[in-house]
Amino acid sequence: MKVVITGGGGFIGYRLAQALLKKGTLSDPQGQQAPITQIVLFDMAFPENVDARLKAVKGDLNDQACVEATLGSDTDAVFHLASVVSGGAEADFDLGYKVNLDGTRALLNACRKQARPPRFVFTSSIAVFGGELPETLDDGTTPNPQGSYGAQKVMCEYLVTDCSRKGYIDGRSLRLPTISVRPGKPNLAASSFASGIIREPLAGLPAICPVSRDAMIWLLSPRKIIESLIHAYELPSSAWGLRRVINLPGFTAVVGDMIDTLRRIAGDTVADLIELKPDPRIEALVLSWPVRFRTDRANAMGFAADQNVESIIRSYIDDEKIPLKA
Amino acid sequence: MKVVITGGGGFIGYRLAQALLKKGTLSDPQGQQAPITQIVLFDMAFPENVDARLKAVKGDLNDQACVEATLGSDTDAVFHLASVVSGGAEADFDLGYKVNLDGTRALLNACRKQARPPRFVFTSSIAVFGGELPETLDDGTTPNPQGSYGAQKVMCEYLVTDCSRKGYIDGRSLRLPTISVRPGKPNLAASSFASGIIREPLAGLPAICPVSRDAMIWLLSPRKIIESLIHAYELPSSAWGLRRVINLPGFTAVVGDMIDTLRRIAGDTVADLIELKPDPRIEALVLSWPVRFRTDRANAMGFAADQNVESIIRSYIDDEKIPLKA
Repeated sequence: MKVVITGGGGFIGYRLAQALLKKGTLSDPQGQQAPITQIVLFDMAFPENVDARLKAVKGDLNDQACVEATLGSDTDAVFHLASVVSGGAEADFDLGYKVNLDGTRALLNACRKQARPPRFVFTSSIAVFGGELPETLDDGTTPNPQGSYGAQKVMCEYLVTDCSRKGYIDGRSLRLPTISVRPGKPNLAASSFASGIIREPLAGLPAICPVSRDAMIWLLSPRKIIESLIHAYELPSSAWGLRRVINLPGFTAVVGDMIDTLRRIAGDTVADLIELKPDPRIEALVLSWPVRFRTDRANAMGFAADQNVESIIRSYIDDEKIPLKA
Repeated sequence: MKVVITGGGGFIGYRLAQALLKKGTLSDPQGQQAPITQIVLFDMAFPENVDARLKAVKGDLNDQACVEATLGSDTDAVFHLASVVSGGAEADFDLGYKVNLDGTRALLNACRKQARPPRFVFTSSIAVFGGELPETLDDGTTPNPQGSYGAQKVMCEYLVTDCSRKGYIDGRSLRLPTISVRPGKPNLAASSFASGIIREPLAGLPAICPVSRDAMIWLLSPRKIIESLIHAYELPSSAWGLRRVINLPGFTAVVGDMIDTLRRIAGDTVADLIELKPDPRIEALVLSWPVRFRTDRANAMGFAADQNVESIIRSYIDDEKIPLKA
């Protein structure tokens, strides 16, 4: 099986590739586990010292020829993770549509040239929801994004579903909760703080929390995201049927609880590195996102969330081998 | 006020232009009726003898320069009706996305260059709905199109909403029921028969009904469509708020009742011109469309439907001055 991961140089994409190397196989259309023969990372930039078993292709999703050359005609599996993040898409309307919508179209066009319709996992986002929201969202809640990023994601969901219906791909779209804790550096995502307020203090660095303590976010750890991406891929086409989009399970974290839990785990010196400094632009976006879901369908399909804030922080400390000074 | 109507050479677009000529004014952003100074029809083809008070611009929505030249920088009102119809978009995937999605983007890009954000009425369709449908749809039903046309329409709804949120336009998307009775010739729309089985027999021509007598369709007359387009425009921005899309009222017509009502109005000789000849491809698409709605929000906003099949047939006979032989 040949696997292509867009955004494969990014944190989730690269970690997914590592998980696939470890797993070694993926389900074929008949439901049999088949050996993974090649994993291609497609991205604009990569970590240093990419694992030699991975093929890194530097390219632009909007370069149709490059995307087509990367997929060739023998790609069985596509994980489409690349995108301009929420803050970036909001700041630059044209860039957001160019990469997040047109880039996805270029990729889907390349998928149509495969010998067999590839299985296609697309990372959407809970940023598709907004506006007048019910207290608890469920599988029937209609997307109503209040940011261009969410608009682009929901448009791509429909495109992935339409291409699946046409038989061009076997698509599955996952609406990801906010991911925490991401290693690395802050990015332009309005949700960047949800990792930063844990990651930076644990590294002895100050962190700014741009939302108030009582703000809530719907969270999932990188570990569970990777498990979900692979699980979404492994499920047979019949499990998805006519509904190719799913809200992933997560849990409702209160920002103040995240800070307090960090304090309990890592001590005052660490937690005191967090400075509360609300930023109206970020707070407005974050408050427009949903914080509570009933994910009945995803649960029934076997997707699972982290247990609580503590398990999220501890899985980060564990995965990233963070030394605790406290 | 300068008004641009895409698809202005088509039946609904041209009739809308005539209605606007008669009305003479449209609401400005302050809610005052302002005189219409120019109506531009943008389309690939036009009726013969276009009214001299209308400016016909022959052009392609995908030609960004042409679209921009047509709008100039002084367009106040855009009615965006142009599209590849459902059957055409299903038969040619690439053409459907090119015209229905990319064409809309080109038009919205041109809107962003206006001196003031234009008010923008977009004709979406109940073809956005499909799949596992509730018996009665309502304002909370999530689109799940089972055709590329519906997918393109729902994607454009999100685009129109996002551009409205950004302040580029003041957008309003209307999900049109199936229109009956359209004058003129059959087209590639899978719903074409819903007009054809009335129009052709009244003209003394045979008509094929590609669905069975018990098939149902959610209908609205051209008269009510035109009224709805203008009403959607006239409503203040505040009436739409964060929800820029609406299901228009209509009524549930049973195909057998349409045939029987035609027989009652126009006689056996006319009704006997209808041949029932189910076409699986068309029937599959039509059966995937919804037939019953609760349109509470639209009703509250002042939109209205026809009363019944008889009023639809009689308004066609009246509007088109059809001689009844019976």
